[in-house]
Amino acid sequence: MWRRSIGSLMVSISRTYAAKESNMAQLIDGKSISQEIRKQLSQELKELVATGCPVPHLTAVIVGDDEASKKYVANKMVACQEVGISSETKRLPASTTQEELLQLIDDLNKDPLVSGILVQLPVPDHINERTICNAVHVEKDVDGFNEQNVGRLALDMDGIIPATPLGVKRLLEHFNIETFGRNAVVVGRSKNVSLPMAILLSSDGKYATKAMDATVTICHRHTPPKELARYCRNADIIVVAVGKVGLITKDMIKPGACVIDVGINRIKDEKTGTFKLVGDVDFDEVRQVAGHITPVPGGVGPMTVAMLLHNTLKAARKQFSDRKTC
Amino acid sequence: MWRRSIGSLMVSISRTYAAKESNMAQLIDGKSISQEIRKQLSQELKELVATGCPVPHLTAVIVGDDEASKKYVANKMVACQEVGISSETKRLPASTTQEELLQLIDDLNKDPLVSGILVQLPVPDHINERTICNAVHVEKDVDGFNEQNVGRLALDMDGIIPATPLGVKRLLEHFNIETFGRNAVVVGRSKNVSLPMAILLSSDGKYATKAMDATVTICHRHTPPKELARYCRNADIIVVAVGKVGLITKDMIKPGACVIDVGINRIKDEKTGTFKLVGDVDFDEVRQVAGHITPVPGGVGPMTVAMLLHNTLKAARKQFSDRKTC
Repeated sequence: MWRRSIGSLMVSISRTYAAKESNMAQLIDGKSISQEIRKQLSQELKELVATGCPVPHLTAVIVGDDEASKKYVANKMVACQEVGISSETKRLPASTTQEELLQLIDDLNKDPLVSGILVQLPVPDHINERTICNAVHVEKDVDGFNEQNVGRLALDMDGIIPATPLGVKRLLEHFNIETFGRNAVVVGRSKNVSLPMAILLSSDGKYATKAMDATVTICHRHTPPKELARYCRNADIIVVAVGKVGLITKDMIKPGACVIDVGINRIKDEKTGTFKLVGDVDFDEVRQVAGHITPVPGGVGPMTVAMLLHNTLKAARKQFSDRKTC
Repeated sequence: MWRRSIGSLMVSISRTYAAKESNMAQLIDGKSISQEIRKQLSQELKELVATGCPVPHLTAVIVGDDEASKKYVANKMVACQEVGISSETKRLPASTTQEELLQLIDDLNKDPLVSGILVQLPVPDHINERTICNAVHVEKDVDGFNEQNVGRLALDMDGIIPATPLGVKRLLEHFNIETFGRNAVVVGRSKNVSLPMAILLSSDGKYATKAMDATVTICHRHTPPKELARYCRNADIIVVAVGKVGLITKDMIKPGACVIDVGINRIKDEKTGTFKLVGDVDFDEVRQVAGHITPVPGGVGPMTVAMLLHNTLKAARKQFSDRKTC
């Protein structure tokens, strides 16, 4: 009797455990997917160079001493080396004037050996970020932040698409997440991530950007919380890029939905007392309801770097063919 | 007894009638509002010229013999004359090559006497519409179709906004329709109307485009009808620009919602046997539920022409000040 009850208790525990396991969302491992993409890019680059083309080159520019910026750029440079893209980082003092920065960008625009230019944001307050983004030549604008590339994306034209939304698209494709005619919600309305994401999700797949034909709702800081929850609960795909810990909770998720977390927040881990990175999604709770979910870190982040490399190779190919270099 | 029942019957009829009347949506009379705007533009233009500035000039280009295009352009030219904008129409044969058209646009781009250039769409099939739109100089692009102006709108930058969505914004402002944090639905995803409309509705009002801070859902041909109805029923503002008679019906409208009909469809009036213009909204039914509604014709259409004039005056002012002409 005693044994039996223990036995049944253990059975019920294991059942509960099994049920929980089977309900768990599939993890979207951006790290491993981005590594596959990097290998592929490395192979494509070898083949390009084998045809007699120059090695594509990315020049990154950092103005000032922001530690995070330095770290981001360092990661990007390492990634370039890994796939065989030649790269250099130009470090300018925080005192650099806008005119000096514009002059450097102009020189890089004209330099036929430079395939891609990346000005790490943010720039110091005395420099207008938008003026700088627009100064980078549209064909070398590997971030896709130049107003012309933004317009081209909006118009379904072939151009350079910002790395993060392009990376999210690749993740959805990798897992065959259906977007055609589905309900998608983009939380946030930033110009570098959310808006291009909304355009890519909603536009026509027949054209050059191979967009995703979803019905898209753009939510933002002025969307009432109840409305945000209502839109999310009806969404097949949610992409959140706000920078607010715990913004997206379990009760806001339709069972089986795909949840893409672009948020990166540095918080103190109360257990260890150390700092850690988390997204905008309540990961541990939401993964029990969602069908697919990206972790933070290791989800969208690595894809952003991979798509920067993709954009640099794409830009180089176009410049080589326009100039009949090879 | 008999009299009394007749009396009560008449009372109940009149009550029903009164109730129906009070339920009727307020008509958004774009015709009269656009006339006010034209008067204002005419006054601003007089003042501009009085300061010694040249008279702004709009050059319209028509390629081929499309009757509708001729009519549209003729209306625009009349409107120019009315407010005092100098204008001319260049008519080119359908056989015009893309190179010839690009050469004309280049000449107009360089002509300091030309403030605005309008290439009436559609162009013949052998000419690439996008190449033409991008060829018009960004500062003279009074249609706002150039990729740079599209990018500027997306980035909340000061630029030229396509006339139709800008006209819709002016209508909403005229009737003090609250958009901040409200639910808006844009039905359609055209690049000249729907996408700029969605961007204007969802973006931040703090910046140069003075956008509307609404939560926006972009629906389109691949949005399932049930989902379209669901999104519309929750919308405070609906802007429909599809070209499908009777797409938006009474049951899809939240009581009191603002319904903006950009659709223009030519149908045969079964009563008279003649042709008439109708929108995408079932006007007679929807007006019984909506709070505000635009008629077709006489709603958005006249605003589009007024905003073209606004854009021409704006473009001229900027060119005069950039060149220190006056």
